[in-house]
Amino acid sequence: MSHDPNCLFCKIAAGQIPAAKVYEDDELLAFKDIHPAAPVHLLVIPKAHIASLADADASHAPLLGRMLALAPKLALEQGASNGFRVVINTGHDGGQEIHHLHLHVMGGPRPWKHG
Amino acid sequence: MSHDPNCLFCKIAAGQIPAAKVYEDDELLAFKDIHPAAPVHLLVIPKAHIASLADADASHAPLLGRMLALAPKLALEQGASNGFRVVINTGHDGGQEIHHLHLHVMGGPRPWKHG
Repeated sequence: MSHDPNCLFCKIAAGQIPAAKVYEDDELLAFKDIHPAAPVHLLVIPKAHIASLADADASHAPLLGRMLALAPKLALEQGASNGFRVVINTGHDGGQEIHHLHLHVMGGPRPWKHG
Repeated sequence: MSHDPNCLFCKIAAGQIPAAKVYEDDELLAFKDIHPAAPVHLLVIPKAHIASLADADASHAPLLGRMLALAPKLALEQGASNGFRVVINTGHDGGQEIHHLHLHVMGGPRPWKHG
């Protein structure tokens, strides 16, 4: 599994920086966004360093699918019982801020910051 | 493969309603959003009727992964060479409007309507 020693999310995945974890398995980690834009705001990341969705290809499809399939379960567990939004920002025009692939899961009563 | 005869996206998948298709295989269809919110705005849908991401479970992970893995390829082909955003709206609080699972792929120079 590849890691970038300078990557914030690699450090969180390695337990070197604390995070409010809500799910973890061998491949994936989910934790609360430190700057929530909605009442429920989680990030789901692969533990391996993938810089962005633009760096993923068909070989990553199983991993990507597990990330998406996890979202409804986590949203519900965190109280987003009336719907949620998942977002992946990629590259400059996509507004990506942390260069480690991450899926935003946002939910809870509106309005949200980006709702 | 399940279909809902009253569903707009099932009708598009069946070729009963025209769409500006940009990709098609046995499982998936991608076409231009009729109300684009960004210079590039595509929708990727499964041909089978899945009402929302909340109706997907682990058994759908391979299909969901294929949808996500397709996004960077299509974004680039459509000219979003500097990044893109993918979004799935689910349920009321998620702002879902069409009740057939769909992945928004938005890109191109900012600002966008939802950028």
